Amino acid sequence: MASDDRGRDKTPPRILCIGMPVRDLIFRVPVVPARGHKEYASAFIEVAGGNSPNAAVAIARLGGRALLTGPIGGAHAASNAIIADQFKGEGLDTSGLVVVDDVVTPISSVLIDPSGERTIATFRDPKLWTVRLPPPDILLADCAAVLIESRCAPFGTEMCAEARRRGLPVVVDGDRMMSLREGLWQVASHIVFSSEALRATAGVDDDVAALRKVATLTSAFLGVTSGARGVDWLDGHGEPHHMPAFPVHTVDTLGAGDVFHGAFTLAVAESQPLEQGLRFASAAAALKCTRFGGAFGSPQRSEVADFLTSGVVGTPACPSR
Amino acid sequence: MASDDRGRDKTPPRILCIGMPVRDLIFRVPVVPARGHKEYASAFIEVAGGNSPNAAVAIARLGGRALLTGPIGGAHAASNAIIADQFKGEGLDTSGLVVVDDVVTPISSVLIDPSGERTIATFRDPKLWTVRLPPPDILLADCAAVLIESRCAPFGTEMCAEARRRGLPVVVDGDRMMSLREGLWQVASHIVFSSEALRATAGVDDDVAALRKVATLTSAFLGVTSGARGVDWLDGHGEPHHMPAFPVHTVDTLGAGDVFHGAFTLAVAESQPLEQGLRFASAAAALKCTRFGGAFGSPQRSEVADFLTSGVVGTPACPSR
Repeated sequence: MASDDRGRDKTPPRILCIGMPVRDLIFRVPVVPARGHKEYASAFIEVAGGNSPNAAVAIARLGGRALLTGPIGGAHAASNAIIADQFKGEGLDTSGLVVVDDVVTPISSVLIDPSGERTIATFRDPKLWTVRLPPPDILLADCAAVLIESRCAPFGTEMCAEARRRGLPVVVDGDRMMSLREGLWQVASHIVFSSEALRATAGVDDDVAALRKVATLTSAFLGVTSGARGVDWLDGHGEPHHMPAFPVHTVDTLGAGDVFHGAFTLAVAESQPLEQGLRFASAAAALKCTRFGGAFGSPQRSEVADFLTSGVVGTPACPSR
Repeated sequence: MASDDRGRDKTPPRILCIGMPVRDLIFRVPVVPARGHKEYASAFIEVAGGNSPNAAVAIARLGGRALLTGPIGGAHAASNAIIADQFKGEGLDTSGLVVVDDVVTPISSVLIDPSGERTIATFRDPKLWTVRLPPPDILLADCAAVLIESRCAPFGTEMCAEARRRGLPVVVDGDRMMSLREGLWQVASHIVFSSEALRATAGVDDDVAALRKVATLTSAFLGVTSGARGVDWLDGHGEPHHMPAFPVHTVDTLGAGDVFHGAFTLAVAESQPLEQGLRFASAAAALKCTRFGGAFGSPQRSEVADFLTSGVVGTPACPSR
């Protein structure tokens, strides 16, 4: 990691985020409609989203540099322009995105109810997985860490393997059930699951028991986030630890897990001690929950620092939408 | 109606459809996600929708001519171009649409589950109701009937009153709870409610009782559609009648009520006897339910004729999407 360490002395760490950008159509509803019913939304915004892209937004707000790679659909150029503009507005490097012809960019309907809970339906065209990423010498140049969402394993695992060969940490966002034969188990240095994905992967209904079960598959650090319940992880001896979430007034949980992953990966890239990194990530995710607008509600670095010091949610530097 | 009768001798009747075009984002899901959950859609399309616009598509497919009027948002020109292209592709006259600056066009998330049931969240910016329609001499020229969705009353009632003064029938799609002081009660010649809207309007939990209650407010023909349960209406003596829906294999109910309204208005414009018109509308709506894609699953006139003769669903002239 010598070259990256040198880079970090001068400029913030650069993180390669492997993921699938999504058009998030966010409706603020009084209640999630029951099957067969209609509800009228009081607000609507369309924002660029997706797990790793959301994490990339968080990384940039927290002072890191993020290079995005993955497929986007070529079918609706106008929609992609909206996505690209929003990411560029956050200072993300989108040069690693690859257009897949005749395919729609993934799209999500996201309903946010008054408690801040999000309910999602997502469409991703299967052809998106045929994408070929740019070569590692381009994507990994000057990178200090890699973050990958687990659904990108089919086209991203080889890039992660190369990153590890180059001595870079590889953080996996386990947001969907992972196959037990998945190559990501071997190439990851850290895997942080959502509770739902971990339980589905392990076939076990308890987070810690599930972590212990999948620990037999990997030498990576293993953690799991479960929203307001906080985060659990296994230490180097396989012993479980728990950190409660910061209590905040939640208005929108969309992207909170992604913000956690982005902040945690940045902490890893900055060589923060593990528990400090988890606390940093928890604080960033908690602040995000206090604001509407998915990952575009992510906090700035100074806000996280203030929050960790005072425990008080300050006035957002970036107004909530 | 002399001039319109003359027009109908040569060309199909022209119907003014007052409504709000909507971007319908349609996801085919294995199950409607429970609050707080994610579901993965197996298909996605974006189509132009909205009650009266959907009815206009049905009218055009059934051999009528439709002129659309109402507000569209000016905020996303590219999205509006998609809507305009789809409507024009159906042969609709969109020259009556009025752009409202700095407003997003109404947008709906529509989930279609394996039974064909639709679950909807819709956002309509309140500023859309500030629209001013083009003058009646333009919109009503050469028209044989008017169809209006009840939510458009604030900007559309005066146009309907003028249409009645000119001797044209005015059909109201009662798709949302109507105020009992609404001017539409006076200017309508026909009001056909959805069951949900009628019950909310009357504050009564039974369709026929609700029809009788609102009958005190209007001299219009009153009917109510309730999906697979069929249609109920009051005759000239206030006596209730029921017509069951045609049994079909349902794959997508989105827009079925709108297709009913469009077909019924066309039947009124063609001076079809009332019960025949209701049967025609029921058949058109039933055929729509057999196809995915909202109102773009509407049948052609010949298909409805064949279905009414044989009771068999033929091969769609327009392939389902």
